[in-house]
Amino acid sequence: MNDLTGITDFGLSWLDASGPHSEIVLSTRVRLARNLQGYAFGSRARVNDRKAVLERVREAATEVEMLNGFALFELQALEPRTRRILLERHLASRELVGENGTGAPSSAAVVASAADPIGVMVNEEDHLRLQGLLSGLRLRDAWQLVDRLDEELGTRLPYAYHSEFGYLTSCPTNAGTGLRASVFMHLPGLVLTKEIGKVLQGLSQVGLTFRGLYGEGSEVVGNFFQISNQTTLGKSEEDLIDHLEKIVQQVIQYEQHARHILMRDASSVTEDKIWRAYGLLRYARSLAFEEVMNLLSGVRLGVSMKLLPGLSVYTLNKIMIFTQAAHLEQAAGRELPAAESDAHRAAFVRRIFATEGDVSPDSDSDAGNTSEGTTK
Amino acid sequence: MNDLTGITDFGLSWLDASGPHSEIVLSTRVRLARNLQGYAFGSRARVNDRKAVLERVREAATEVEMLNGFALFELQALEPRTRRILLERHLASRELVGENGTGAPSSAAVVASAADPIGVMVNEEDHLRLQGLLSGLRLRDAWQLVDRLDEELGTRLPYAYHSEFGYLTSCPTNAGTGLRASVFMHLPGLVLTKEIGKVLQGLSQVGLTFRGLYGEGSEVVGNFFQISNQTTLGKSEEDLIDHLEKIVQQVIQYEQHARHILMRDASSVTEDKIWRAYGLLRYARSLAFEEVMNLLSGVRLGVSMKLLPGLSVYTLNKIMIFTQAAHLEQAAGRELPAAESDAHRAAFVRRIFATEGDVSPDSDSDAGNTSEGTTK
Repeated sequence: MNDLTGITDFGLSWLDASGPHSEIVLSTRVRLARNLQGYAFGSRARVNDRKAVLERVREAATEVEMLNGFALFELQALEPRTRRILLERHLASRELVGENGTGAPSSAAVVASAADPIGVMVNEEDHLRLQGLLSGLRLRDAWQLVDRLDEELGTRLPYAYHSEFGYLTSCPTNAGTGLRASVFMHLPGLVLTKEIGKVLQGLSQVGLTFRGLYGEGSEVVGNFFQISNQTTLGKSEEDLIDHLEKIVQQVIQYEQHARHILMRDASSVTEDKIWRAYGLLRYARSLAFEEVMNLLSGVRLGVSMKLLPGLSVYTLNKIMIFTQAAHLEQAAGRELPAAESDAHRAAFVRRIFATEGDVSPDSDSDAGNTSEGTTK
Repeated sequence: MNDLTGITDFGLSWLDASGPHSEIVLSTRVRLARNLQGYAFGSRARVNDRKAVLERVREAATEVEMLNGFALFELQALEPRTRRILLERHLASRELVGENGTGAPSSAAVVASAADPIGVMVNEEDHLRLQGLLSGLRLRDAWQLVDRLDEELGTRLPYAYHSEFGYLTSCPTNAGTGLRASVFMHLPGLVLTKEIGKVLQGLSQVGLTFRGLYGEGSEVVGNFFQISNQTTLGKSEEDLIDHLEKIVQQVIQYEQHARHILMRDASSVTEDKIWRAYGLLRYARSLAFEEVMNLLSGVRLGVSMKLLPGLSVYTLNKIMIFTQAAHLEQAAGRELPAAESDAHRAAFVRRIFATEGDVSPDSDSDAGNTSEGTTK
């Protein structure tokens, strides 16, 4: 039950950076919260409720075309490392893998499609959390994928639905549509020009919110922000998606403008920052994950500014995923204490840059190159 | 009068790192303070005294075999940049070039041999400061060079000498032998193992002292220390030299031991530090001089530990000299404001490493390399 080959693609297909605006928007995620009638919700659900929910989902999934050949992982049956890998690929939430130290909750599971970038978390905060993940900014596409899955599952499962409140959820903030659409953005321009505070404040005024790398309560590192809708009630799914799309398009424009300002007013400082980040990633022997994220932020900016020829966003996306602790342990085939993990992380980065990101220190022509230099 | 070709060698020949212990001891310098009878000393010397001293030295120099073909630079006649180059090569002191903002003192001059790494500062704190500079730890050789020059000049100039006090000097701390022998050492091991404080304290207990890069009152950067005798009186020149030699040999042993400890107890941390320093030097677009010194310290440690194959101490020595501000301006053929200077400095470092220090990020085999790494 620790074989992840069935889900190789889901959780990773966004890495190819094939979607629109993928230099600024890494990925788009849409999730729907659903619960089943006749079983207690959330923290009130007893072991039997949870067990029954899981069995009903398993049964329904076998009949759903989009889930043809799906894999189902019960989290309690997985090795801790495998659970953490699901978390690192965002296939499972921190709650589902029991990151708080209590261990995975009973009958918690992940259903992963063999074909599409969709899946279902079972017995998380809600009975079902349907989700879809695409590269770049593709809110409508992600919504349609998840909507189709929702329809197929909905004909086979008795969703708890109230004519006035819509879909009922464990936490009222998710009721109504049960939809959360989020866009994972890289905003170094806004951070470096110190405009980010204003932008984030603006988001909250239009019903949106932001989070860090691992969702709710996680820290923002490397200038990567998850921007999502705050409210789920009183608007249609399409309206929520369209609204988020409109705002994200605006944030993209702000970010592009900020990058333009940076290159106009602080190009030397910015270029220096970018090349230093690359030099450190290229040569360091020990790297903590957070430092990698911060350095990747600089390098990613450099790629989008065409300063680092031959380096692709795909390579940088892979580094983000595969330098996470559990992925490094999986590659090493054993547990790695922190110091060793940092060494393996640095080695992974060097190796991947050696084959797909070997940028010469002199790939640009800056002012300094025009001097002749006196050597004896 | 701004052509420095006559002194290309003096001030630079030590760069070749040919001397003993040149991985720890960059260079050895011996200087003798001398004054002429019949002319006021130091701050009491009037313009006429200074002028007469310079003329007497010029005349004597033409008759001295060791100074055959010498160049004589009057500092007031030099362009400011050329004066600073003399300072950066340690051919002139800060006082002689008027670094305090008052400009070069009247009749201040530098006499530089065309052949040997010897020279004379004229009208510095003393009428004459004879000096010799060699690569590595070569105290006896440097002393003999300067001693010969002293004898040759002494037969032609009326040195102020007192049978009881020895050579008379402007400042009593230099009286007696007038000798200051100093050894320019790189001591990163002692700094990183935090043993340096004890060592420096020990020096003061045996009549030695330490200074930074540009002599008295200058800061220590990059773990480079100038260690020299404090007292000049009451001992023969040979005794002073032998004593310094003995202590320096001890410091070398301490440093080697500290490096051994570092590699035994903190090899990962130390290697990471070394490779990061190299990566930053290799890729940065802007480098302040002090940062270069600090990074060079790491890289130099790496070279001595055989971690950076193909990189030589000679290359690192050249970087130390040619990335100083006036040298960069000379290479650019114009004045460089600070930001531009930092850009030229970084470009110089990249250029020199491209041709004589291109070390691959994977030149070693560390633990991290043994993991396989999963890439999609």
